[in-house]
Order: sequence, then C-alpha cells, then structure tokens
Amino acid sequence: MRLVIYPGTFDPITNGHLDIIHRAVSLFDQIVVAVTDNPAKKPLFTIAERVEMIKTVVTNKSRVTVESFSGLLVDYAKRKQASAILRGLRATIDFEYEFQMALVNRKLAPEIATIFLMTHDRYTYLNSTIVKELARFSAEISCFVPPFVETKLREKYSKNEFH
Amino acid sequence: MRLVIYPGTFDPITNGHLDIIHRAVSLFDQIVVAVTDNPAKKPLFTIAERVEMIKTVVTNKSRVTVESFSGLLVDYAKRKQASAILRGLRATIDFEYEFQMALVNRKLAPEIATIFLMTHDRYTYLNSTIVKELARFSAEISCFVPPFVETKLREKYSKNEFH
Amino acid sequence: MRLVIYPGTFDPITNGHLDIIHRAVSLFDQIVVAVTDNPAKKPLFTIAERVEMIKTVVTNKSRVTVESFSGLLVDYAKRKQASAILRGLRATIDFEYEFQMALVNRKLAPEIATIFLMTHDRYTYLNSTIVKELARFSAEISCFVPPFVETKLREKYSKNEFH
Amino acid sequence: MRLVIYPGTFDPITNGHLDIIHRAVSLFDQIVVAVTDNPAKKPLFTIAERVEMIKTVVTNKSRVTVESFSGLLVDYAKRKQASAILRGLRATIDFEYEFQMALVNRKLAPEIATIFLMTHDRYTYLNSTIVKELARFSAEISCFVPPFVETKLREKYSKNEFH
Amino acid sequence: MRLVIYPGTFDPITNGHLDIIHRAVSLFDQIVVAVTDNPAKKPLFTIAERVEMIKTVVTNKSRVTVESFSGLLVDYAKRKQASAILRGLRATIDFEYEFQMALVNRKLAPEIATIFLMTHDRYTYLNSTIVKELARFSAEISCFVPPFVETKLREKYSKNEFH
Amino acid sequence: MRLVIYPGTFDPITNGHLDIIHRAVSLFDQIVVAVTDNPAKKPLFTIAERVEMIKTVVTNKSRVTVESFSGLLVDYAKRKQASAILRGLRATIDFEYEFQMALVNRKLAPEIATIFLMTHDRYTYLNSTIVKELARFSAEISCFVPPFVETKLREKYSKNEFH
Repeated sequence: MRLVIYPGTFDPITNGHLDIIHRAVSLFDQIVVAVTDNPAKKPLFTIAERVEMIKTVVTNKSRVTVESFSGLLVDYAKRKQASAILRGLRATIDFEYEFQMALVNRKLAPEIATIFLMTHDRYTYLNSTIVKELARFSAEISCFVPPFVETKLREKYSKNEFH
Repeated sequence: MRLVIYPGTFDPITNGHLDIIHRAVSLFDQIVVAVTDNPAKKPLFTIAERVEMIKTVVTNKSRVTVESFSGLLVDYAKRKQASAILRGLRATIDFEYEFQMALVNRKLAPEIATIFLMTHDRYTYLNSTIVKELARFSAEISCFVPPFVETKLREKYSKNEFH
Repeated sequence: MRLVIYPGTFDPITNGHLDIIHRAVSLFDQIVVAVTDNPAKKPLFTIAERVEMIKTVVTNKSRVTVESFSGLLVDYAKRKQASAILRGLRATIDFEYEFQMALVNRKLAPEIATIFLMTHDRYTYLNSTIVKELARFSAEISCFVPPFVETKLREKYSKNEFH
Repeated sequence: MRLVIYPGTFDPITNGHLDIIHRAVSLFDQIVVAVTDNPAKKPLFTIAERVEMIKTVVTNKSRVTVESFSGLLVDYAKRKQASAILRGLRATIDFEYEFQMALVNRKLAPEIATIFLMTHDRYTYLNSTIVKELARFSAEISCFVPPFVETKLREKYSKNEFH
Repeated sequence: MRLVIYPGTFDPITNGHLDIIHRAVSLFDQIVVAVTDNPAKKPLFTIAERVEMIKTVVTNKSRVTVESFSGLLVDYAKRKQASAILRGLRATIDFEYEFQMALVNRKLAPEIATIFLMTHDRYTYLNSTIVKELARFSAEISCFVPPFVETKLREKYSKNEFH
Repeated sequence: MRLVIYPGTFDPITNGHLDIIHRAVSLFDQIVVAVTDNPAKKPLFTIAERVEMIKTVVTNKSRVTVESFSGLLVDYAKRKQASAILRGLRATIDFEYEFQMALVNRKLAPEIATIFLMTHDRYTYLNSTIVKELARFSAEISCFVPPFVETKLREKYSKNEFH
C-alpha cells in the first residue's frame, strides 16, 4: 500500500486543491491531506474549521483522510510511513519555492520522494489568498471553491465586519 | 497495478535519469522507459543502441521495462494503459517547457496525469547534451554516466574522429 | 485614429492569436496583422497561404487587415504610422524574449510602444509549433485552431506523407 | 472614447510610473490614475498626499485624472466603464504576479482587458520601496522621482527622525 | 590591494556563506564580511552575536575581517574604499532580487562593481531561514552550519521555549 | 597575480562585452578574452576577424590580451593558470544557462571559480545576434558596437548581398 501526504495550509481548500486530490486518488492507494497548524501565519479559519471543510468537500472518503499536524513535515511523513509528499504546481512562482523545499526534505529524509502534480489550467491563477480577497469584497467565488466553503467564507466575512 | 511511462530521448541515459527511475520504482508498480524514435533530432546513438544501454544499466528489471516508440506520446500512453507520464525536473528552464507539454497532454488525454519528480541536487546541472560535449573533449565523465555508457561514448567519439 | 501592428509568423494562426486580435479590436481603431516573410525559419505554409488563412478566419474585416512584410519590424511600423506594436503573452518563457525585443524596438523607435496582451488561460499552452506537431500525428486539434486552418493542416500533412 | 485605469499604491509616484502614464496618453483617450486606499499596507504617505503628488507632477491634465478607490479593482473599472486596466512591467519578478492578477481579473470581468506596457530600461530597477529606502538614508534620488516628490520625501523623513 | 565587501544579515552564517567567503579569499586580497544592523528584520541573533559567530568560524583571519554596519550599503562600501560588493547566488529566485539591487547600487556608485559567485550545488537550497526553521524543530542541521553555530542555535531555541 | 578568462563567441564584440571587460580591469590583474573556435555555430566572422576586432577596440592593452581557443573551457583555463572564468549576465534567460555551465565547470575544475558581472542596464537587451540582425537590415547600430565593428559589419553585409 502506498500512502502519500498532501500538506498545506488550506485556508480554505479550493477547487485547485480538490483537483490535485482527485488526481492523486487515481495514482496512489491512500492520500492524507495534512493541514499545517502554524498559528504564526494567522489563518482566517481555525485548524478545526479547515479540517472540517476538507472532510466535508472531499468525496472519496475511504481513500482520502484529513489530519492536522505541527512540527517538521518530514518527521510527520516518516511517522505516517508515507512513500511521498505530494505538491501541486501552478506556475513558475510556485516552482522555485517548491523546488527548494523538496531539496531540503530530500536531504532530511532521502527515502521520501516529493511528487509534483500540475494544477488544471482552469486553476492556474487560483490560490487561497486570492479567494479570501475576493470573498472579502463579496465578489463571485462559486467557480473557485465548493459551495460549503463559499458559505463558510461568507459567514466569516459577515461576522468580522471591520477588517 | 499502476504503470507509468518515463519518456525521453536518452541520448545517452545519465545518472540523473537513473535517479528518477530509482525513485519511480518505489512509487509505482511498473515503469516503462520509453525511448522516442525521432530521427529529426539527429541523435548520437541509434534507437537500438539507446534501448540497449538503458536495458544494461537499469537494475530492477522485473519492474522496469524499456521500449522505443514513435508518434504522439499520449496515444502511446493510452495503448500501454498508463496511469501517468513521468518527467524529471532539474530547474526552471526545464519547468517551463515541461509545464507546457503537460498542459497539452492533459488536454489530449485528461485521464493520464503528468507526474514530476525532482532530480537529485547532485545532478542539477546534468543532461545528455553536456555529457556528450564532455565526452567529445575526453573530459572525465565517470560521475555523470554508468561505466557501460561511458565505454559506449568513448567508442563513439574515437570512431568519429573528425566531428 | 490609432493603428496597431500585430506581427508574427502565424504558421498557422491559432485560436490563441484570434483571442488577442479580438481583444485588440475593442481597444484600438485599426489592427494590422503583419505576417513576417522570413524564409530562414522554413515555415510549413507559404506566406500567401498564411495570409489567406488569417483573412479567412478573422471576423471584423473592416477594422482588421492582413499583410505580409519583410525587413525590420520598427521600419514597417513607422511606414504604417502605427501607434504601437501588439504582442501576446502566454508565460514566462515568452516574456523574457518579448521583453528583450521590446527594449530593442524602443531603442530604435522610441515613439512606438510595445503593448502586451495576455492570452486566455485556455490557450496558455498553445502555440503554432505544438499545433503542427499534433496535426502531423493526426491528433485532435479542433479546439486549438479554426475549422478552415484545421482543414489546411490536414491537407498539408496528407500531401507530405513522409516527414 | 477609450478610458483606461492605471491602478497602484503610488507610495510615492516615481519616474517609472510617469513614463508609463506618458506612454498611455499616446495610446488611449483618457487615463485614470487610481490610487488604492489599502491601509493594511501601511503606506508612508496618506491617500490624500499620494493623490496630491500625482496631480502635481502629471502634465497632460485634460486627459489624465487622478482618483483614489477602495474595494475590488474590477468593480471600480466597471463603474468607470473602462476599456482596460493598465499595468507597467519591469522584470520577471513583476510579471508572474501581474499575470496571475490579470487572469483573476479576466475571470471576474472578461470584458475588461489587462494591458501591459514596459517600463523604460532606465527604470528597470526602480520601485517606490527602493526610492523610500534611499530617501531614508538621504541618498541622491533626483533621477528617480520628480522634484516635488523628492521634497515631500525629504520632509517625511526629517519629521520622523526615528524610523 | 583589492578589498571586497560581502554584506548580509547572516542570521546565522551557514556553510553556504562560508563557501562563498572561501571562494572570495582566492580571488581578492581582503574580504570584509559586513553584517547589516537592521532591527526592522527582527533577527533571531543580535548583531553582536552574529558578528561573533562569523569571527569564530571564519578561518583565514588575516584576510577576512568582520564588521557590522548600518545605513546605505554603497556609502559604507565607499568609506571602506571597496573595489566591489560580493553576493552569493543560489537560484533564479535570488537572482531577480540581486540583479535589481545591483542595478540600483551601480546607479548610486558606478565605480563599485557587484560580483556574483555561485554557491556550491550542495548548498543550493540552503538559507538562514530554513536553518532556523529546522533548528526550531530540533532537526539535524550539522551539514548546514558549523558546529559553533549549531550550538548557538540549540541554545537560542532551548531558551525561548514557547515560540 | 590574478588572471581571469573571459570566454565567448564574440561574433562580433559589442559595447556590452566591452563594459564587462572594463569592469574586470578594475578588479583583476590580467584579463584574457578567449574567443571560442566552434565552427559548428557557423559564425558570421572568422575566428581571425573576431580576434582582430577585439584587439582593435580594447583599450587597456597591457592588461587585456585576446586569444582563440578550442576544446574544453576548463582545460584551457587550467593551462592559463586562471583564477576564475568571467561571465556577463544580462537577464534571467542568461542566468539559467550560465548557472548550469558554472556548475558543470565547478565539478570539472573545483579550483576555478566562475564570476558573474552584471551588464550595464543600457545593454540589458543587447547581444551579438540582435546586432547582426539589425546590421543585416541596415538599422542604426552605432550605440551598440564600437565604430570599427560597425564598419566590419557593414562590409560583411554589403558583400553577402543575398542572405
């Protein structure tokens, strides 16, 4: 059985992330979506909210599990006996940073590969920061996130009226 | 069973390619190294020589097979019932081109993913063109290619004395 | 009246090019699609065939004209009393080269600006070379080029059976 | 009549920005320099100061107007019935980000194009952050900003003695 | 005698920095490692600690001196009568920023060149931020920094238990 | 005494190359401009013509010598007892390739550094290919090359009337 870790902040999960998860399901036996618990990043959603949103919108629940983790990614991946770390790539701007992290992780845990999957061209410009910026200004976001996430974003921004 | 295609010119195979194949063996059930038969590129080695070199230097022979193919890569991948196309990445310069091809292939065959694996940092600068250039000037290449390929390169350049 | 030049090899014109022309029509009074007559590039289609294809597939014929030209682009642009040279951008790989040419042209003719328009994300991976490669192997290309161009590509590759 | 929006923080306006405005005046009927009112960015100059500086240094006042705006850029552009959003490009680092924003904006408002103009090579390295850094250390900046802006920068840094 | 300045935050110095210093010693008569005193960056180590660490780990003490400085780099370089500013390059991500700063510095002080040396491929992914992140999670860092720096990092993170 | 090699095709030498040589003279004791004798590249000028042009336009003749060489660059650099190989950088497009070559050369000859100097921003877009293209169409090139090189280019293109 081959298990891969798909780590990220997922603040919140977008259709681009779901596209990567969908791809991975056809390639590996088990996918662990691993939500990083990094309070320094000041996420909009709590770790519990982010895990809940992913659990709600992911379809293949027998093969995709959702967890949070803190600490070093490669230590977590070793504990999970992962074959690989999975990363989505959108454009050059991603690539440089991703490549650097993959080299560091390879140095720290040579037995765990980093696998890159390309995001669908429809989502080439999509990331969580842009989705939040759009939601904050009440722009149309139904093509960027699943309905459940859209609802949660609307709730968050109507509560925090002054941001 | 998940089969992936690792396509390339392999003129000749280098330690960088072997590193990718070694990685892939730990991630997928079957790897097909697919040598492109593209005479327009005027390779140094014939297609038969290139296939022979890979067959000789690849270790896990039960799980790695070597073939040549012509025509469109996605058509070949469909015939082989491949789950994915595998590509090695070295640096940004690779990435742009690889990303473009992956998008085209996704358009043509949405069911076949393109998977990128990162080359070892030791091989970041390595490609077949550089190896041939070095061999042509009798430079030391034993850290770039397996001994069998080194011998074949030396033979090739001693035969073609005037190049 | 503001006239812009949209220069290129157009071997053949693709839906990506048509998207740029369509955008330009909403921004400028007159668009001259200028096909470069550069035999050194060994195009698949003759200059006459390329001009004919563009004339056939362009819709707003009162505001878009098609011509061929040879020599230096800025000299041609000056003769046409162009306000600007128009270029499409797809990705970083384009950008570097385009930026360099724009700086040279600015040096040679400071009064003529270079304007960049972004290709639709649907066409991010599309260029004439890829379309020809696909047509050569009889792949599906109807989403990349207009029907008239598809027919011409099919004719070209059925004539030259051995390529 | 074709109106284009030239949005930015302009904290403060530089000769690079003025070069873009000057170019745009020769290409479009009306230019609206739109200063973004984003307090989260903690600009050195207030929105009123930034608008005043631009109004003072812009020459073609009949065709160039200056405004501030908050909210989503594409909503503002629609209200102004803009034909296009104008962006200056300096180098690859700009380009990646600009391309991403342009794709998002195209998704949100397909009828509004994003047009890129290249900054003069003299200003390739110039941005507002660098100008402020130089002014803070009392370096020579007269070749980077108009005299009025230089004076305002000097005032600002002599007032805030401890920075 | 030719003196070059090697400026940086060095928070802390890594084996990648030491590789650059070692290279520079073979090329120039005198190297001044210049630690920037920029409290806005909120470094982990004080300026005194950073200078002390570099002084401890640098070997060729007759030709390499260590200082701190504040203010504009080119002003400092002029006061030291430096022939050049030395910068290490790791990858494209560095390069864009470095190139921009080098152009600004050339404008401000045309007589002082900026010289780029390439980091060893072993250190391609290495920077001070990554080293601190690894140390914070008690990961193995002995291949990234000298033993003295490793000890100082361990001390720092055991003191600040809640970070 | 520190000697550096400045290798290149120099077909022909441009003001950008001369700017690099001028910089290098202030940093090193001896500069060897090394013209690569690579007939496969089909240069416009013979190796003798290229050497002659550089000898004519270089000013500091006591410290700058001009030679041609064939074979592997690092072997040549070792024979000359060079401290370093010098390369000019213009933009990212250069950088990727230069970085790769520098890594290969470091592997082959670890004792010889590769030093990068940045071209003047005035020459950011300049290379020999563009100069030849402009000369071929009789465009103004006096700001790109020294007068002697301009004359040689004009002669070359008036002789080869059909190109």
